[in-house]
Amino acid sequence: MEHTKKKQGRQTFRFTQPVRVLSSACFGGAMEQQGPLGRYLDGYDETGKFDGENWEESESHLQRQTIEKAVEKAGLTIKDVENLFCGDLLRQMTASSFGVKSLGIPVFGVYGACSTMGESLLLASVLLEAELAEHVVAATSSHYATAEKEFRFPLSYGNQRPPCATWTVTGSGAVVLKRDKEQKPGVYVTAATPGKIMDYGITDKANMGACMAPAAVDTISTHLKDLDRKPEYYDKIVTGDLGNVGSDILLDLLKAEGYDITKQHMDCGMTIYDQKFQDVHSGGSGCGCAAVTLAGYLLQNMREGKWKKILFVPTGALLSTVSSNEGDTVPGIAHAVALEWKE
Amino acid sequence: MEHTKKKQGRQTFRFTQPVRVLSSACFGGAMEQQGPLGRYLDGYDETGKFDGENWEESESHLQRQTIEKAVEKAGLTIKDVENLFCGDLLRQMTASSFGVKSLGIPVFGVYGACSTMGESLLLASVLLEAELAEHVVAATSSHYATAEKEFRFPLSYGNQRPPCATWTVTGSGAVVLKRDKEQKPGVYVTAATPGKIMDYGITDKANMGACMAPAAVDTISTHLKDLDRKPEYYDKIVTGDLGNVGSDILLDLLKAEGYDITKQHMDCGMTIYDQKFQDVHSGGSGCGCAAVTLAGYLLQNMREGKWKKILFVPTGALLSTVSSNEGDTVPGIAHAVALEWKE
Repeated sequence: MEHTKKKQGRQTFRFTQPVRVLSSACFGGAMEQQGPLGRYLDGYDETGKFDGENWEESESHLQRQTIEKAVEKAGLTIKDVENLFCGDLLRQMTASSFGVKSLGIPVFGVYGACSTMGESLLLASVLLEAELAEHVVAATSSHYATAEKEFRFPLSYGNQRPPCATWTVTGSGAVVLKRDKEQKPGVYVTAATPGKIMDYGITDKANMGACMAPAAVDTISTHLKDLDRKPEYYDKIVTGDLGNVGSDILLDLLKAEGYDITKQHMDCGMTIYDQKFQDVHSGGSGCGCAAVTLAGYLLQNMREGKWKKILFVPTGALLSTVSSNEGDTVPGIAHAVALEWKE
Repeated sequence: MEHTKKKQGRQTFRFTQPVRVLSSACFGGAMEQQGPLGRYLDGYDETGKFDGENWEESESHLQRQTIEKAVEKAGLTIKDVENLFCGDLLRQMTASSFGVKSLGIPVFGVYGACSTMGESLLLASVLLEAELAEHVVAATSSHYATAEKEFRFPLSYGNQRPPCATWTVTGSGAVVLKRDKEQKPGVYVTAATPGKIMDYGITDKANMGACMAPAAVDTISTHLKDLDRKPEYYDKIVTGDLGNVGSDILLDLLKAEGYDITKQHMDCGMTIYDQKFQDVHSGGSGCGCAAVTLAGYLLQNMREGKWKKILFVPTGALLSTVSSNEGDTVPGIAHAVALEWKE
């Protein structure tokens, strides 16, 4: 099969256009503000309500205000944004639809469970690579209260969670991308590896780290192989929400593939909360987990020169309550996006 | 704001790469086989079960076999397909995830409710325009039994439907796109207009045609304005599943915008079933409605020379049972894709 030069190996894209991160923004709730990354938030609502009349509306408001803030930080207005890629965890993606409908931007709804920030960032970059837009926004959100209702039990049941369970982040992250022909210094999306769905047959939906780890292994190892890179190429290889349990599996399985990423690896789910003082069991999760960590902590540290090259690999568990109740496994997916500082 | 030449007007993409429809396939259930488009199906299962143990698995099998058939008809193998864009109506998109996971193709999950075939086709074309792939598949599915369970009542309740309600198509359509540098004669994706979310405040989820019509109006009029085209440019302007009620609204509102598309307009929902002899009330609906009509009837008639130019505009209603139960409106979205025969 013939390939263009932009396509590397089996499944990696190499962007030839200057896809620059113009700005990013993130908001969270009380838990996220109290956590170690709290100071990277553009704002928070300690009630988690964001002026919504119900939790779904709260998440919609959260996502919209995050997008608006990112656009404002880019020095743009909403009218300058040509396309929006967004998605969330709720059935039929209503947090996003109701959140962004008033913005009047052509919308592409995307779904990759908690890997959604990777998918939206990747596809937004593809649109710029195709030279079909100049300014595009990639965003996603999750909310603890909507996710518990969607996937588990109403909050008032107060159900117990096993130690391998994760805590859904109340948060949203948005990134404004620009095809920057002037190539100003900044963070650029340079490559990306869209993920395949991996299913190792795990059915325990309370152990999503284990369900998603094989997908992260496949995407990271494919990315490194396709670009003939060693883990050391990156200052950080950042998974989304594998948590303690999933991260251990990731490191073990990647070693078996010949890649030791122990030194580079960081998991957003293990970083966003204080694992000593915040009772989140295996870590944070949800689309917002990787999105908030990227839009706040990761990009800020890149701007400050701490890290030059990051491989961002959010992971998603492709289940629903219906699939789980019918006894199905929990397949996973992970999309990798390479971010590099360029002078 | 600066625009590349590929971007026309406010929001229309013009593809400069040869994005050719290499093949298409569609499968349906008994209702679809008995309907006027039955002879365009590649196959059907009159039980609707497609060897599934439950309806969700049935839809997954249906979507996978449609993709496999389309790839086979293209003279390719699954390994030749570099990327897959797919989605469906079920919560967390499980019909697609479980359907395609065994194919081993990097997957982009997309959600635009019943406009999903438009979104998947549009984004697959963008990927080819970016020269990041040579062969991409766009697909979607819906299933009467899973959709009734997801959005309405269990089938065994036998609930009554109002005359403006539509019947969810059991069906899947898949299209294989190729960046055809040889530019062989065939159907090409030449332009596309991604849609904005439109909300006219309608809350009647049994009248989805009315909810979606404003989005179709906005996308079609924007497309024609952006490209400075009259409706006569197209042999057919094809909406997805507006049905009888929504189609009347579409024609009226477009006339108010200065566009009379009465002669060109066709609605997949009004075409896929026999409105005299099949009791579907306002017509067919679901992601599969536009997808089956495109992959079967529309593309076959283009191949046979009956139509040279089609504007395909599937429409989606962005609701969930939760948003409806909370009293929310039903916003709509429509994505337009221009298909043209080239010698």
